[in-house]
This record gives sequence, structure tokens and C-alpha cells, in this order.
Amino acid sequence: MKDLLFMNEAFKEACKAYLKGEVPIGAIIVRNDEIISRAHNLRETLKDPTAHAEIIAIKRASEVIGGWRLIECTMYVTIEPCPMCAGAILQSRIENLVIGSKDEKGGACGSKVDLMKHNLFNHNVNVKYGILENKSSSIMKRFFRNIRRR
Amino acid sequence: MKDLLFMNEAFKEACKAYLKGEVPIGAIIVRNDEIISRAHNLRETLKDPTAHAEIIAIKRASEVIGGWRLIECTMYVTIEPCPMCAGAILQSRIENLVIGSKDEKGGACGSKVDLMKHNLFNHNVNVKYGILENKSSSIMKRFFRNIRRR
Repeated sequence: MKDLLFMNEAFKEACKAYLKGEVPIGAIIVRNDEIISRAHNLRETLKDPTAHAEIIAIKRASEVIGGWRLIECTMYVTIEPCPMCAGAILQSRIENLVIGSKDEKGGACGSKVDLMKHNLFNHNVNVKYGILENKSSSIMKRFFRNIRRR
Repeated sequence: MKDLLFMNEAFKEACKAYLKGEVPIGAIIVRNDEIISRAHNLRETLKDPTAHAEIIAIKRASEVIGGWRLIECTMYVTIEPCPMCAGAILQSRIENLVIGSKDEKGGACGSKVDLMKHNLFNHNVNVKYGILENKSSSIMKRFFRNIRRR
């Protein structure tokens, strides 16, 4: 139930991205059942290839915590992170990662590669899949369908 | 010869990180034989897990270029990028990557994993290794030796 509620907050972020013409992906970071950071993809708006939802959310959470280690934090993200974002999650020591929908073409948490494989790197993340999967993938499909039509 | 000159500029950035007590890694980005961006690791200073030399250099280069695609750009980095940074290099469409020394424990360009494997993702990067390898690895070893002594 908690996962659904928090993933829905990440989904709200994805909707914000959609309305800005950005690939609709959203992420939030939770600590002690409290949302400490929320973000959506802003690559086009900021003209920054690193401005994915997860990276922005991690930067904001670090500011809130006042350090780079996001210990006891959980990230909810609507789509499986790419290698950059999966790597950032490892770097930030996030404890739990809850993913909406898989990204078969570019996902780095099991789909295309698995950077979250146990003991591959010096930090392990608990990964859970499939929370609000349909909602998260539907908005992506709609976004890319609209682009192809144009 | 050009590679040595540019890698030496990346090494100068690594030295700046060393003097700040940061893991000594430096990166520069070159376009048309001109350095458009330079950066060193600032994770501790900025309290930001994403503040690796490569990420900062990519953000700065995007600002210079005025867009997120770093087409026709070459990155010189003293140590093999981690998954986050290798992923950011793929995201930014950097064309060439020149690496000083390998990182057997955490490198994502062939050592621990190979995110740069041809046709794995939707962008291919030409990767070259071993330019100023000894200098780049020596400053890392000295840094970690000093930490262990303390």
C-alpha cells in the first residue's frame, strides 16, 4: 500500500515532465516514510544530458540530508533507470529502489544490463519491480506515439 | 602527442582534486582541438554523490554548446569512469573517450563491466586506454595510502 502511494507521487512527477514535452519519467526519494526529494526529467528544458529525474532527485536529497550518502533512503522511479542513473543510485548508497515499469531497451537494473547484481559493486541495493507498472509505461507509450505523429 | 597534451590537462584537474582532499580524478572535454570544459571530482566539497569530474565536465560542456548533445566531442579522463559516469558519457553522445588508467574494482568501460561494448546501447563511443596511465594511477595510490595512514 505504501509503495503504491509513493509510486503515485513519482507518477505525478512523470506527468509534470509529460506536460513540458519531456520524456515522462518521475522519481521521489523517501526517508522514514517522508518524501525528502521529488523530481522529473528535465533534459530538454535544462539542455543537460544528466538532468534525468533520478539524478535531480539524488542531488536534492543530498542537499536535504547535508551529505552525499543517502543512507536509509528509498527511491521510487516510474521507469527502470538507465546506466547513468543506476550508477548514481549505487554512488549515493540508496538502500531500496522501487521501479514502475521495465525499460527493455535501455534499463540497467536487469533489462539491458544489471548494475544492481548482488555484490557486483561495493554497495547493494534492494530492487523491487512492477509497482504501478501500467500507468508508468502507458504515459511513456503515449509520449512516443505523439512524437512519431508529429 | 595531442592525446598526451590533453590528458595532461585532465591530470592537472586531478591534482586540484588531490589538494582539496578529493579522490584525485580529473576530466576535460575537447571539441575541434579546443578545451571547452574542465573539471575535477568534488564529491566531498559539494556533498553530492553525482559530483564526479566527468559529470561536472559534461554539464559545463553542455552549457558551452547550448544543448545536451556533445557531438564531435572527446573526453579525456584520468581514471576509467564508474557506471554513473560511463552512462552519462553515453547519454551525452560524446564521440571519443580517452582514459588514463583502468579501475579494476569499479570501472565500467571494460574492467568491472563494459557499458561501452559496441551496440549495447543506442550510442557508440570510441574508447582509448593507457594515456599517461602511470601518472594517473600513481596519484590515486598516493591519495589512498595517505588516507590509510590517517
